[in-house]
Amino acid sequence: MDTDQLADRIVAGDRRALARAITLVESSRADHRDQAVALIEALRAKTARQAVRIGLSGTPGVGKSTFIESFGMMLLGQGLRVAVLAVDPSSARSGGSILGDKTRMERLSREQGAFIRPSPSQSHLGGVARRTREAVALCEAAGFDVVLIETVGVGQSETVVAEMSDIFVLLLAPAGGDELQGVKRGIMEMADLILVNKADGDLKASAVRTQADYAGALRLLRKRPQDPEGFPKAICVSALQEDGLERAWDEMRALVDWRRDTGHFDARRAGQARYWFDQEVRQALLAQLETGAARARMDALAEAVADGRMTPTVAAQEMLDSLGGA
Amino acid sequence: MDTDQLADRIVAGDRRALARAITLVESSRADHRDQAVALIEALRAKTARQAVRIGLSGTPGVGKSTFIESFGMMLLGQGLRVAVLAVDPSSARSGGSILGDKTRMERLSREQGAFIRPSPSQSHLGGVARRTREAVALCEAAGFDVVLIETVGVGQSETVVAEMSDIFVLLLAPAGGDELQGVKRGIMEMADLILVNKADGDLKASAVRTQADYAGALRLLRKRPQDPEGFPKAICVSALQEDGLERAWDEMRALVDWRRDTGHFDARRAGQARYWFDQEVRQALLAQLETGAARARMDALAEAVADGRMTPTVAAQEMLDSLGGA
Repeated sequence: MDTDQLADRIVAGDRRALARAITLVESSRADHRDQAVALIEALRAKTARQAVRIGLSGTPGVGKSTFIESFGMMLLGQGLRVAVLAVDPSSARSGGSILGDKTRMERLSREQGAFIRPSPSQSHLGGVARRTREAVALCEAAGFDVVLIETVGVGQSETVVAEMSDIFVLLLAPAGGDELQGVKRGIMEMADLILVNKADGDLKASAVRTQADYAGALRLLRKRPQDPEGFPKAICVSALQEDGLERAWDEMRALVDWRRDTGHFDARRAGQARYWFDQEVRQALLAQLETGAARARMDALAEAVADGRMTPTVAAQEMLDSLGGA
Repeated sequence: MDTDQLADRIVAGDRRALARAITLVESSRADHRDQAVALIEALRAKTARQAVRIGLSGTPGVGKSTFIESFGMMLLGQGLRVAVLAVDPSSARSGGSILGDKTRMERLSREQGAFIRPSPSQSHLGGVARRTREAVALCEAAGFDVVLIETVGVGQSETVVAEMSDIFVLLLAPAGGDELQGVKRGIMEMADLILVNKADGDLKASAVRTQADYAGALRLLRKRPQDPEGFPKAICVSALQEDGLERAWDEMRALVDWRRDTGHFDARRAGQARYWFDQEVRQALLAQLETGAARARMDALAEAVADGRMTPTVAAQEMLDSLGGA
């Protein structure tokens, strides 16, 4: 099957074609890479579909899988198609914090309108980022209405997910005491919507208190031009009891609609495209240093520098000359 | 005066020649850059002097200037020559957190055996790092026994200073309560010696308590192979009353002697040389993107990507092709 046929099948909604295409973009083989680029170009020519891309971050224990399952089922109930992707740079090493198998979202994975794909197995976050970004484009072309991109928030993975999402959602569990959880300020500043999960049973009161705390904290942050009145917002949900999920989706839609009307939606996607272009150029430039002859030369020069035979500056100049750059 | 003459004068201890050489390494003019590289090469051929390079970090208010002045005077009293350099990436913008003038170390700056140089005015930390590293080499060639490299610890500047020091010293003030100050864990892990300053007058008891707290915290850190028994260590000093300064120097010397005997001293310098080589290559590769034609091309491609005319991946490939790299 050539690239163009594969593209047609994806646009027609063939799930196996989609899965195969994602495997293609995840491959690091050079010929696969070329095919992947050609495929995405072909899809860009065939369709201009846009999904709502929702970035979702939450540490283990907040009930992320349960939330995605319940939230996904609710969206399906509204006639929407949902794809779930993951960014988990740790997946190559430990099997990952996000489980690769589909057992954790059993109901959702059995649905025709849902597509679940674990994080690509790459230890390098840059690699995971590009592959996920391309998988998002494939899912959009395949006609999914909502693409959920989840992360556990290891290192920079939240930034990576926020930079490929239209809205960024932070899922939290009720705090034990009456204090804010150790959410990094940078993450708070990225969030469009904070969902305090587990607002059920014994934890309900605690969830409400936590929600109020975060609502207060969000009000202290500087107002961003891309936010309508009242955003960023914190609300309670219960993934277990499927409570508050429609409200969460309504809030997301309201935010997306406002941003579409005001041009912020397109501006954000344009800014993200610039960002990824810049990242790709930088990563590729630095990747030159990791391959065959260049790697050997780097090692030899590093040895000379460590022995004191050369200064770092002179050795660096020699390396750059050998690359033919700078 | 040619490079070789300048090198001879530096080795002979001519302070004006040293100041002039540092101005040369701080310049970003291409011809100055070439002269600076040639000068450092010439000095490497002429002398193999090694100073003890002490990195010193402390936030504003801990009494860093007073400490450097008292500590420097004490070293002069022992017949040692002392150079003081600074790494302050904020100096280009605001005039810097570290004052550029010599008024803050009045006594020391009047001494023949001391040399004080403010941070180079570069807003880019990479630029400050290289220039300071080269200034350290110049001060060593000029026969200084101790080179103090101070930083206020803005962003990554502590890492930069630690990567050019033989020992890294953290200067702290007595804590208000009975809790540790908000010292980042990463900084604690870099420190070889913590000095709790202001152990005098009303603050003495508080300083002793703070010192005990940090001593306890340091014991909880994983033992590093480059540390003899008892290190890293926390002790009290009073820069104002010139108390504990000899002890601090004795501890530093004991640490340096042990590391020399065990090979850790040379291994650290070798590792640092590798690190700076790697950094210089990477920075130079990325700097290609900032110059004339490449910058214009980056901007044009970013525009095409933002408009949706190209994907980031295809645009990045085009950029790399135009650089002739990858």
